[in-house]
Order: sequence, then structure tokens, then C-alpha cells
Amino acid sequence: MLQNEMTELLHIQYPIIQAPMAGGVTTSTLVAEVSNNGGLGMIGAGYMSPVQMREQIREIRELTSNFFGVNLFVPEEFDMTENEINTAEQLLQPIREQLHVEDKLDIPTFSKVTETFHEQMKVVIEEEVPVCSFTFGIPSKEMIKELKEHNIILVGTATTVKEAIEIEKCGMDIVVVQGSEAGGHRGTFLAGEKESLIGLMSLIPQVVDQVKIPVIAAGGIMDGRGLMASICLGAMGVQMGTAFLTCEESGANKLHIKEILHATEDQTALTRAFSGKWARGINNKFITEMKQHEGSLPDFPVQNSLTKTIRKASFSQNNRDYMSLWSGQSPRLAKRQTVKSLIHNLMTEVDKFNKD
Amino acid sequence: MLQNEMTELLHIQYPIIQAPMAGGVTTSTLVAEVSNNGGLGMIGAGYMSPVQMREQIREIRELTSNFFGVNLFVPEEFDMTENEINTAEQLLQPIREQLHVEDKLDIPTFSKVTETFHEQMKVVIEEEVPVCSFTFGIPSKEMIKELKEHNIILVGTATTVKEAIEIEKCGMDIVVVQGSEAGGHRGTFLAGEKESLIGLMSLIPQVVDQVKIPVIAAGGIMDGRGLMASICLGAMGVQMGTAFLTCEESGANKLHIKEILHATEDQTALTRAFSGKWARGINNKFITEMKQHEGSLPDFPVQNSLTKTIRKASFSQNNRDYMSLWSGQSPRLAKRQTVKSLIHNLMTEVDKFNKD
Repeated sequence: MLQNEMTELLHIQYPIIQAPMAGGVTTSTLVAEVSNNGGLGMIGAGYMSPVQMREQIREIRELTSNFFGVNLFVPEEFDMTENEINTAEQLLQPIREQLHVEDKLDIPTFSKVTETFHEQMKVVIEEEVPVCSFTFGIPSKEMIKELKEHNIILVGTATTVKEAIEIEKCGMDIVVVQGSEAGGHRGTFLAGEKESLIGLMSLIPQVVDQVKIPVIAAGGIMDGRGLMASICLGAMGVQMGTAFLTCEESGANKLHIKEILHATEDQTALTRAFSGKWARGINNKFITEMKQHEGSLPDFPVQNSLTKTIRKASFSQNNRDYMSLWSGQSPRLAKRQTVKSLIHNLMTEVDKFNKD
Repeated sequence: MLQNEMTELLHIQYPIIQAPMAGGVTTSTLVAEVSNNGGLGMIGAGYMSPVQMREQIREIRELTSNFFGVNLFVPEEFDMTENEINTAEQLLQPIREQLHVEDKLDIPTFSKVTETFHEQMKVVIEEEVPVCSFTFGIPSKEMIKELKEHNIILVGTATTVKEAIEIEKCGMDIVVVQGSEAGGHRGTFLAGEKESLIGLMSLIPQVVDQVKIPVIAAGGIMDGRGLMASICLGAMGVQMGTAFLTCEESGANKLHIKEILHATEDQTALTRAFSGKWARGINNKFITEMKQHEGSLPDFPVQNSLTKTIRKASFSQNNRDYMSLWSGQSPRLAKRQTVKSLIHNLMTEVDKFNKD
């Protein structure tokens, strides 16, 4: 049950993938420790430059000889009206003043973002990374063909059955289904925001009935109970974010970790105020204040760029009010522990289940 | 694993409760068939008069000698400004005209609603109904004491950990945890709407860790996979609504059933436009049109009363546009079958799991 087509494909002992959290969470130690302890470590490379990516891939290779992966953000065309920029700027400027930061107005263009994406993919191929997963969409046919020619295992991210079907159709090997419970960015790329908030209890079996490729469950899974439940629903494994974010090897900000360890299940909220894309995090002043303006803010990655200095300053000033405190809906189950303990405890629980 | 404290308490063979769907869905045949086939049938009596309740309880007694239950809505104080009534009336009047119905302006008062609730409870006691479950809150201490003196098993409905803790504290025997996947009304009574939309993958284990009474999972569960997953997460059983709503014995409108059988997981929406309380149903014209006014509509049960003739007419005219097409997030798993087949197939799947 726990050794299956997916674990074989990914060369892993346990059906556990560490979610590729972007923004510095996935240190080389975190990724390598997951891979060294029987799971699949993943670099959240969405915001990385090709140079940073290459450095980290090489660093991880020094720490593990096991499989690991890289996650990339698929660029989407984005709208950006002057009006949206002005609205955002008017809302963000007072916060910048409060935090004593200046705006480095560095608005990305679609062609620049696409260029970076191509360079990131080139690094994946040149460095022969065994696994590459994608969020926010599906790369072009040509890109998929090229990656497959280099025997790279491809993983897509879906939030609805239709998205999972498209991921299978384009030739990817595995699909991660992200339930509404999940922390961080929603991977939605075809559906609307509200339509795509499907709980895993509903999402997993409905996807499993429609695709043949292995399905990985993501969202709110923190322990052996979540892994076993996902397997019962038809998934071949799990991808866990928040559970690894609070681990000792994680690069997450200490205050962020503390906030998760003290949060309850009813304290997260969905917001697009940080980046322009919907994401789940612990509610704070920024999310609450921006709520009513959410519809008029620019798309990802423009809004992300506009809030960059604010997020950075709030982290360095230990100010929870303006931080993106990403978390799934199970913060009560989060623990501060090593990756080794997390995986060991989880698999012990699973063993106990299978004996009962 | 499947025979536990909860099945013992409820005198049932399988850990399956049929959700008490109000509005005529839970016919005596449906309830009795569930109880006769090893589960617990439940009357959705929220909107029933004490006389109707008594009749149905007696009818069911003719059809089964097994345990069954009744569900009641706990009255909450409600706000009702003239402004809200006017807003609702302005929005509803054109629809009434289109459907050729008149408004019977019959606005409920809190004292009337409370009086009915007391009479309903009296029926439960007099008719010695074995199980009584509650939605939208917790009855008074005195009422709980009286019900317990009559050995009636009490079941509460929670959507957050805090709500589950309160249900345990007040002395109830079992708690149903309703995940964000669930169709129909949200049982939320302490939390806000958004805070209480927790997926079952997160909700079950976090509740189980905090209460000692048996936990029943509800929301999107349709088959053996969902039952097994809920058990893995720590629940002692499941409560299923949509799965029983499409059964041959159900009293649901045929068009409603057809809509569920043809719907996909991304087609439900949350709305408070039908009743004044948040509920999940298949998206239609009414939900879409009322979306932007949702915040200015009166509370339950006032809005429910204002839309009554519209809902009734749309059902009798087979007009999907204005019906409350309640459904959970797993409509792709819904089947038209007998209760006997549903329970038999589900338990066959479960047996297969336990053999693998």
C-alpha cells in the first residue's frame, strides 16, 4: 500500500513529498534531510534566479545522493492597469512609511518572467535534477517534450478534476491535488478562486476516478492519520508543507514558525493581497486591512513585487502585522522537531495503523 | 475498528448516519430503510411542526424497530432591520412576479421560533425517540438535562474545534464535525463564516485531539473510501447527506437529484441568499444574482421565510434557477440507487480495504 508506482518512480522509501515552499523555506539542509530520511525533498525555486537555483542544486548534491526535486512557477499572462497599480500604491505607501522602507518600483513584465522561467528550466536540465514540479499551470508542449527527453519526472499541481485531467493529458507523470486546506499559494490555473476550494475528502476520490497517473494529496496533512486517510481516498502519497515549515531545518522566519505553533484551525484566511494570487496564511492586520480592496489589486507577480519591501522589512523587524504567515488549516498539529523525527513518528503511526 | 463506542451507543451495525436533511428529503421510507440496513436514519425536522413530527415518528416506528433519530434547529436570536427586509423584498419581488407567486409575508419572531422548538423537544421526549441531534447551536442546560433524564442520546454539530469542545462540555454524547465540503446549511454557531470553513482532512484530527466523546465526520463522504479515510483521521463514523439525497427512497425533488447526478465538484457555491444562513448548493441564477447583496439580507429564519414561496414555486415549476439545490462537494460520486445498495456497496468496499 505504501510502496507503489509513485514511490518507485520517485525512488523514495516513503510516500512523502516535502512541499516546495518558496521564499527561503526550503534550505539545502531541509531538502537533503527529507531525501536522506526516505521522502522527496523539493526546492521551492519559484522566486529564485537561475544562478541561485544552480548553487542550491549543487549544494544539495553534496548533502544527499538520493532523488530530490525543484518546483517552478509557470508564468501566466497578467493584467496590470494603471488604476490597479495606483490603488495598490495608495494602500501600500502608508505601510512602507510605517516600516521605514522605500519602494523599489520594479514591476515585472511578462516577457521578463517568461525568460527567467526558460532559464530556470535550462538549469533543471543541465543539472539533471531528477524531478521537476510545476505550480500555476502547465508549461508548453515543447518544454514538456524537452524535459521528458532528459528523463526528468514531471509533477503538476491541480485544484480541480479538470486541472488534473489537463495535467495528465499533457504528459506529466504525477499530479499533486491541492485541497482547500492547503497553506500558501493556490495552484489554481483553470478554475475561479471559489470554484477551486475543494476539500481533500471530496477532491482526492473524484480526481482518482478520472485520471490514471498517480495522485498525491496536499493540504492540511501533518501526520500518519493524514497519510493513511489520503491513501484510503485513493492517493498514492502526500505532499506536506506546514509540517516541514516548522521543522528545525526549515529556513522559515522564527516568528512565522512561532505563529503557526500557536495558531488554531480557525485562524487562517485566504488573501490575494500579498502577491496578487490567492494564498492561505494566518490572519493578520495586512490581510484584514486589504480585504475590502482585494478585487482591485494587480495580478501576480505585480502585486508580489509591490509588497516585496514590506514583507522583507516586516520579517527583519519581527512585525507579524505585515508578514505573509503562510499556513494550512491544521496548525494545531504542527510541531517543532527535526525532519528525521517528523518522518520517523509519521511512519511509526502508519505502522501502528496497519497492525491494528 | 468499525464497531466502536459510537455504534454501541447508537445500537447500529455500521458507523453510518444518514444526515438529517430538512425540507422533505427524509421520508419515513428513507429513514426506516437506513435503520433497517444497519445505519442510523434521521428525520430532518428543523422546519416541521410538532404535529408533523409526531406523525412521521409514528410512521417510522411502523417501518422499523431499530434506532433512528430526529434533528432540530436550535433557535438563535436574529437581527432584522427594516432596511434588510426592504432590500430583500426589492430583490425578491421581480422573481415572485416571474414565477407568478405572491408573497405571504409571514415574518417569524424569536419567541415564536423558540416556542416551536420547545414543542418539538416535547414530541421527542413523549415519543421516546432514541437519538436527538442539533444544528445551529446548543440547547439550554435545562433542556439537555431533561432530554438526558429520558435517556435520549444527544448529538451536536460543530464546524470548528471550539464548537466541538462546547458541545462536549454541555454534556452531549456525540459530536458531528461538519467539514467545508458539506452540502446544505453550515452548522456554525460560534465562529464566523470564513473561519469555520475547515476541510475534513484538517478538522477531524484537530477535533479528535481535543474531545473525548465520539466524533462523526460529515462533508463530501459518499463511499467506502470516505468512511475509511474518516476512521483513519480519528472519527468513529460518518454522516452522509448528498449520498442519501439521491437515493430512490429520498423525498428530494427529482430535478434536484438530476442536477446533483450531473454536477461536477467545482459547481457548488456557498450562499446565504436562500435562508439567511450560509449553505452549500449547486450554483444557479439565484445564487449568482444575489451574490453582491448577500451582506445586506436579513438573518435566518427571516430570509428563509421571505424566499419560501419562490423556492416552492421553482420546485413545482421545475425551474432550477431559483431552487435551493443543496449538494456537498462530491457530486461526481453520487448515484441513483436504493439505500440498501448504497450501504451494501459501501461496506463491501470497506471489507475489501481491510483485506488488502
